Amino acid sequence: MARVFNFNAGPAALPLPALERAQRELLELGSSGMSVLEHSHRGKEYEAVHDEAMALVRRLLSVPDDYHVMLLQGGASQQFAMVPMNLLPAGKSADYVLTGGWSEKALEEAKLVGTARVAATTAVDGRYTRIPTQAELDLDPAAAYVHITSNNTLFGTQWFDFPNTGDVPLVADMSSDFMWRKFDVSKFGLVYAGAQKNIGPSGIVVVLARKSLVDGGRKDIPKIFRYKTHADNKSLYNTPPTFSVYLVRNVLAWLEEQGGLDAVEKQNREKGRVLYGALDELSSFYKCPVDVGSRSLMNVVFRLPTEALEEKLIAEAKKAGMVGLKGHRAVGGIRVSTYNAVSLQAVTALAQLLRDFARANA
Amino acid sequence: MARVFNFNAGPAALPLPALERAQRELLELGSSGMSVLEHSHRGKEYEAVHDEAMALVRRLLSVPDDYHVMLLQGGASQQFAMVPMNLLPAGKSADYVLTGGWSEKALEEAKLVGTARVAATTAVDGRYTRIPTQAELDLDPAAAYVHITSNNTLFGTQWFDFPNTGDVPLVADMSSDFMWRKFDVSKFGLVYAGAQKNIGPSGIVVVLARKSLVDGGRKDIPKIFRYKTHADNKSLYNTPPTFSVYLVRNVLAWLEEQGGLDAVEKQNREKGRVLYGALDELSSFYKCPVDVGSRSLMNVVFRLPTEALEEKLIAEAKKAGMVGLKGHRAVGGIRVSTYNAVSLQAVTALAQLLRDFARANA
Repeated sequence: MARVFNFNAGPAALPLPALERAQRELLELGSSGMSVLEHSHRGKEYEAVHDEAMALVRRLLSVPDDYHVMLLQGGASQQFAMVPMNLLPAGKSADYVLTGGWSEKALEEAKLVGTARVAATTAVDGRYTRIPTQAELDLDPAAAYVHITSNNTLFGTQWFDFPNTGDVPLVADMSSDFMWRKFDVSKFGLVYAGAQKNIGPSGIVVVLARKSLVDGGRKDIPKIFRYKTHADNKSLYNTPPTFSVYLVRNVLAWLEEQGGLDAVEKQNREKGRVLYGALDELSSFYKCPVDVGSRSLMNVVFRLPTEALEEKLIAEAKKAGMVGLKGHRAVGGIRVSTYNAVSLQAVTALAQLLRDFARANA
Repeated sequence: MARVFNFNAGPAALPLPALERAQRELLELGSSGMSVLEHSHRGKEYEAVHDEAMALVRRLLSVPDDYHVMLLQGGASQQFAMVPMNLLPAGKSADYVLTGGWSEKALEEAKLVGTARVAATTAVDGRYTRIPTQAELDLDPAAAYVHITSNNTLFGTQWFDFPNTGDVPLVADMSSDFMWRKFDVSKFGLVYAGAQKNIGPSGIVVVLARKSLVDGGRKDIPKIFRYKTHADNKSLYNTPPTFSVYLVRNVLAWLEEQGGLDAVEKQNREKGRVLYGALDELSSFYKCPVDVGSRSLMNVVFRLPTEALEEKLIAEAKKAGMVGLKGHRAVGGIRVSTYNAVSLQAVTALAQLLRDFARANA
C-alpha cells in the first residue's frame, strides 16, 4: 500500500507502529489464544493493558497523585453534559469562555442542566479568530467552575497560556490538543479529551479530575454519569471499550518511545514553523484569518483567493497523496490538522505543494 | 497460534472471519491509503461502513420502517439511565420486571431519574432461577413503559415468549441475547443491546426504537442524551466509535453469510441441546439451578458438588484449551456462555469434558 499523508481533523492519522502492533496482535493477545477483543474486561490479560494505558497517561503528563485518571465513553460531547451534571449544583452558576463552535455547544448543554453564563467571547459576526486575554475575562468569583476549549478545530485557534481563575476550578475540553505537549495538570479542576485526535481512536475519552472535585460531585444524577462511579472503579464500573483502550495504550507507548511529550512538542512546534512559515511567505495568496498569537499548532486554517482555487488545491493535493484538507463544513476554506502522528515529512511536503500551487495560480 | 474455545460472558468470542478481515484491512481500508481508524466519520469511505452496519441490523431483524436504528456509546449501563431520561416524564411511573442483577441496576438508575416500580420479581433470597409468567406480572396500565431484561448473564435465565403489555410500550435490554434469533421488533417500544456478546466489541450499543416514542421523548434533558438527536443524525451527531461500528459490520456480514438469524438460531438451539443434555444426563453430579423453561441458551450456569471441584474443572478445561468458565463473581459456580460465535464444535468438546470429569470425580 501507498500510505497517504493524512491531515484529517479527527478521527485522524495514527502512528503507523501503533497500528502495525494492533494488526500483529489482532488475532491473539500474547499467547492467550484469543484476540484482545475477546478477552473479559475482568481478566488479567486485559487488566494489564488497561492499567498500562492509565499509567502511561499519568507518566507522560506527570499527573499529580490527587488527580483521578478516567477512561470513559461518549465522546467530548457527552462531557459537555457530564461536567455540569456533576459539578454544577442548583443555586450555583458556571462560567463559559467562548472561542468557537465547540465551546458554544458545551455552553448549550450546561444551560440544559443548570445556570451558565458567558464569561468572555471573541466572536465577531459568528466567527472566532483569537483567544481572549486574561483582562477580557469577566469571571464570576462564585462560579462553580470556568470552562474553556483549549484548541478550536474549526477556527484554528489555541490557548497557549491558560487563564488564571483564582479559586474557581478551571475545566478544559482538550480534545483536539491533549498531549501535544506537557501541561501543569494541577492548574485544572478537570480536563477531558476525546482520544481521536492525538492519542487514539474515536469512542474513548480521557478525563483527569482533582479528587476533591470528584468527591464533592452531585449525587442526585444517575450513577453511570457520576465521575465518582468511574473513579472508584478504575474505569471498570461497566464494560469499558476494551479495544479502544488497547489502541490508546499502543499510541501512548509509541509516544513514550519517541521521547515523551517534550520531544513531541518540539516536533509539533517545528511543524507549525514550517507550515505557518510557508503561509506567511505567501501571504498575498494564502490568508490566515487567525491572530498570530492565537494560531493553533494542531489545526492550521486559511483561505485562498476563491473557493474554486480551494477546490483545485484540495484536488491537486489528493493527486500528490495528501488528504483531509477540506475545512469544516461550518466555515469552509482549508484546514490542515497536524496532530502528533502527522510527521514533519508530511507537513514539509504540504508546504512545498503550497509554494508550488501559489506560484502556478497566483 | 492455537485458538482456544472461548466461553467468556462478554466481551466474548468473535467469529474468526470477522477478526481476520479486520486484521487484513487494519492498515488500509480499500485502497484509501489509511486505516479505517484514521478516516473521518464524515468521509465517504467510513460512511459506507456505517450505512452498511445499520442496513445489516435492519435486514437481519426485518426492522419495520417506523423504527429507528441507532448506534450509540456508553454500554447498556448508560441505557439504564437514558431510557427513563427520555421516556419517563414527571407525573408518570415506569414498570420494571426483575429477573436478575442487570434488571435491578436498570431499576436503580430509573429511580434516580423518576418514579419506577417493580411489576414482578422472581427473586428468592436474592437469587433468580426463572422468568415470571404473564399471570405474575402486576402491570400498571398507565405506566410510561415496562422494562425487561431478555437474558440474564449472571443467573442463566432467558425470556422465550415476551410479555403482553397491552398499550404500554415494552422496553427490553437485550444485551446478552440480541440477534441470537429473529424476534418481532414491532412488539417493542425500544430495544437496546451492548454489542460485546453476540455482535461485536464492547463500546457500542444498538438501539431500536419506535419513531413515535422517540419523537415524543423528553426535551428537557441534555441534547446528547436524547434519542431524537441521534436518530435525526443517523448516529453521526457526534463522532461515533468508528472502529467499533466497523467491527459490528464485519460480524453482521459474517452472520448474514452463515444464512442469517434462522440458521444461527438453529445452531444456538443445537448447542443448548448438547450442553443441557450432558448436564441432565449427569444430574447427580452437575446441578443446574434454573427452571427448565427458563434455561438460557446464551449462558448456561451450573454447580458442582464442591467449590474445589469447580476450580478443578476450570483448571482441567483450561489445560484442554477451554476458557471463560468461571461463574460471575456475584454468584460463583460455572458459567458457559455460548453466543453466536461459539461453535457447536466448542460446545461438543466441552460436553465431552463434562462427561469425562464427572466420571473421574463423582
